[in-house]
Amino acid sequence: MFKKILYPTDFSDISNKVIAAIKQLKEAGTSEVVLIHVIDSRNLDAMVHWAPSDYQNTRKLIEDMAAENARETAVELEKEGIAVRVLITEGIPTQEILKAEKEEGVSSIIVGSHGKSNLKEFLLGSVSEAVVRKAQNPVIVIKR
Amino acid sequence: MFKKILYPTDFSDISNKVIAAIKQLKEAGTSEVVLIHVIDSRNLDAMVHWAPSDYQNTRKLIEDMAAENARETAVELEKEGIAVRVLITEGIPTQEILKAEKEEGVSSIIVGSHGKSNLKEFLLGSVSEAVVRKAQNPVIVIKR
Repeated sequence: MFKKILYPTDFSDISNKVIAAIKQLKEAGTSEVVLIHVIDSRNLDAMVHWAPSDYQNTRKLIEDMAAENARETAVELEKEGIAVRVLITEGIPTQEILKAEKEEGVSSIIVGSHGKSNLKEFLLGSVSEAVVRKAQNPVIVIKR
Repeated sequence: MFKKILYPTDFSDISNKVIAAIKQLKEAGTSEVVLIHVIDSRNLDAMVHWAPSDYQNTRKLIEDMAAENARETAVELEKEGIAVRVLITEGIPTQEILKAEKEEGVSSIIVGSHGKSNLKEFLLGSVSEAVVRKAQNPVIVIKR
């Protein structure tokens, strides 16, 4: 049940708690983690619209930061003997995460919950909640 | 993180999947499960109102069934070497579960999600979702 875990992340400050949980789940059979980071295409669309001249540079910066953050997380998990596959995709986060759940054949999902401090999430409903509601597999929710 | 797990249950058909998950978590350190079953006081209130003459008998039946179901689950987990503490309480389920989380000092919570088939839950929002949102500790959601 915990063999291959999908780990959607926006590299926020809850990541350390999630990584600690994955290390413990290793004892319950976790051998592979699929780390997915989704660059929200709605933010990119807004950027094209409002700041077209900065678009290419900013986009490159976002992608580079995501790749660097993902690499750091991968190194940390690999040190524990857990295989890591990194997916950096572009789209609507919930949709991309549920697509990866299906395509990667994971056996569970681990997510950080963002709590009430984030106004955007409070208004739109959090990605974590949508994943808990719509996923096929067990979802482990790590609280802030 | 998975040492002492709170397991709220209504003994529905997802229980077997949750129990299977707990058995796997044993390898990640689970040594104690606090099983909580909440008899919804709102149902009892309705029963007093609509069927006062049957109230005492029906209530006794509900309590006996809960105790018997809890005992069966406890035996199954104890066979795996996991200590089980059973709480059968009366009140509003979400409130009782969050109270137990605090009072029992658990390190995580495991719940079954009920999916969309249950009309009452669809209308009222599920207990699982409220627990995921309000718990302090990690919540493992097992999908139907």
